[in-house]
Amino acid sequence: MLVVAATHGNERCAAWLLECWLAQPSTLVNPQLDLALEYGNPAAHAINRRYVDRDLNRCFSAELLRGSCGDVAEVVRARELLALYGPGAECPAAVVLDLHSTTSAMGNSLVLYGRRPADLALAAAIQAKLGLPIYLHEGDASQSGFLIERWPCGLVIEVGPVAQGLVDPAVCRKTQLALEVALEMIAAAWRGELPLPRRLVVHRHRGSLDLPRRPDGTALACLHPLRQGRDWQPMRSGDPLFLGADGRMIPYVPSAELAGQTVYPVFINEAAYGEKGIALSLTSREVWPVEEPWVEDLSRGLQRGCPL
Amino acid sequence: MLVVAATHGNERCAAWLLECWLAQPSTLVNPQLDLALEYGNPAAHAINRRYVDRDLNRCFSAELLRGSCGDVAEVVRARELLALYGPGAECPAAVVLDLHSTTSAMGNSLVLYGRRPADLALAAAIQAKLGLPIYLHEGDASQSGFLIERWPCGLVIEVGPVAQGLVDPAVCRKTQLALEVALEMIAAAWRGELPLPRRLVVHRHRGSLDLPRRPDGTALACLHPLRQGRDWQPMRSGDPLFLGADGRMIPYVPSAELAGQTVYPVFINEAAYGEKGIALSLTSREVWPVEEPWVEDLSRGLQRGCPL
Repeated sequence: MLVVAATHGNERCAAWLLECWLAQPSTLVNPQLDLALEYGNPAAHAINRRYVDRDLNRCFSAELLRGSCGDVAEVVRARELLALYGPGAECPAAVVLDLHSTTSAMGNSLVLYGRRPADLALAAAIQAKLGLPIYLHEGDASQSGFLIERWPCGLVIEVGPVAQGLVDPAVCRKTQLALEVALEMIAAAWRGELPLPRRLVVHRHRGSLDLPRRPDGTALACLHPLRQGRDWQPMRSGDPLFLGADGRMIPYVPSAELAGQTVYPVFINEAAYGEKGIALSLTSREVWPVEEPWVEDLSRGLQRGCPL
Repeated sequence: MLVVAATHGNERCAAWLLECWLAQPSTLVNPQLDLALEYGNPAAHAINRRYVDRDLNRCFSAELLRGSCGDVAEVVRARELLALYGPGAECPAAVVLDLHSTTSAMGNSLVLYGRRPADLALAAAIQAKLGLPIYLHEGDASQSGFLIERWPCGLVIEVGPVAQGLVDPAVCRKTQLALEVALEMIAAAWRGELPLPRRLVVHRHRGSLDLPRRPDGTALACLHPLRQGRDWQPMRSGDPLFLGADGRMIPYVPSAELAGQTVYPVFINEAAYGEKGIALSLTSREVWPVEEPWVEDLSRGLQRGCPL
């Protein structure tokens, strides 16, 4: 099992937890799993910035890992993490849990990249226990190379809102709670006793929206006060979305693909996504039946890892 | 009148407002005052960091301004602002309003540096209208060189919580409200009609506390969840203050000077103050009678400025 904190160097809550757990392992409830605790990006953590050269959590694409970006700090670090714990390592981690925080009001949530059965099994079990929402990121060619994708099973625990550079004790508590339940569920799956619900609620990625901008890139609007902080809440055509510099409300107008559908925005006004041209992402809320093969996939993956 | 935004380059709310007001002056209610609108630190704003070389809002000390720090970007900018609008300028600003935001839960508040009668008159009138709290910073040799100190009258409008790098529409609204009331009161004072309350409530600076740290400087604790976000709320000896890495509560223990007194913490867990060794500041809540000479001082200062 690999637990990563500070994949982004200015997300301090999980980094603080990691420090606590390393100093005093008994402060993390662990059902006797063999845990590796790692700072994802220690160089960025040291300078309290998201990254040094490039977002580490977009550096795990096959292209970048294979490529010749030998001088990009984060690509070097991505290779290092894979050499230590990746599928080809001497003692590979079967599951990775990547702990993040956000300035968006995401609450305590899980992020999945794609529909891997093992991820879905683990996420379903955690959701059944904690009731937390799941953001399924898929079909977005502009955002790729996420850390957890390189391991056979992995989840992001995403908690907010919290400012960058800040240790907020309530955000720490939520992060630890989600992690402890994740560990409990992995141990249960290892024993072949994963308690699975019948259904899973996912918020499936459907696209992202940027602020309206002038041709020179400067913003023409900010988030509307009735949308700010309302992650996971329904949005329909015509609902207030942005507030123009001239004080006018700019409503949500769905794309042709989303016409007539209710969407559920996530990552609303995440401070780090401005540079990515994302003011919020849109999801569809879907209820899926949980499938038996998901658990089998998770169990098989756990058997392939080192002994617990 | 000088209105400054983005004295800290990653405080984006006031910067966004400034952009709106410059593009469309009618979006700011202004009782016909002659306003100069300035980005405090445009270079830091451009890179979305608090500062380039040094905190601009600590660069207005006589020593730094006189000194030989000619290559420090912020000292150069401080001299520039003074040359344009300072008391020695061709057309000096009589009052400066410096718009800030914070990751602390300060709400909508005013900050004063020292007990200048003109500042107290203006702050009392704004408080009477909006009911917002006032933090009086004084007697702190470790923090000096604030921008507003170089003008005969000046206030900081401080709004939070908001993450660094983020435009939060509710924080923008509060900032604009406080500024518009400040302008209204300055115009009233100019006409000799400043509506003054009988009393003023100030939260007077009594000192700052850092996190408990190891000899190497690393933190041994974070803010206690019962203290986080509770700016302006009373704290007494024994109340929970920090949460140790080992999970133990660390209570507030007053210094000899503050023994037996209730304190009111402010700037609790401001992200930018970690580097200054400040986890929170302590204040005493005091009710002062408003004095007639304060208004006279404000009026005299306004007469000395350029015609409105």
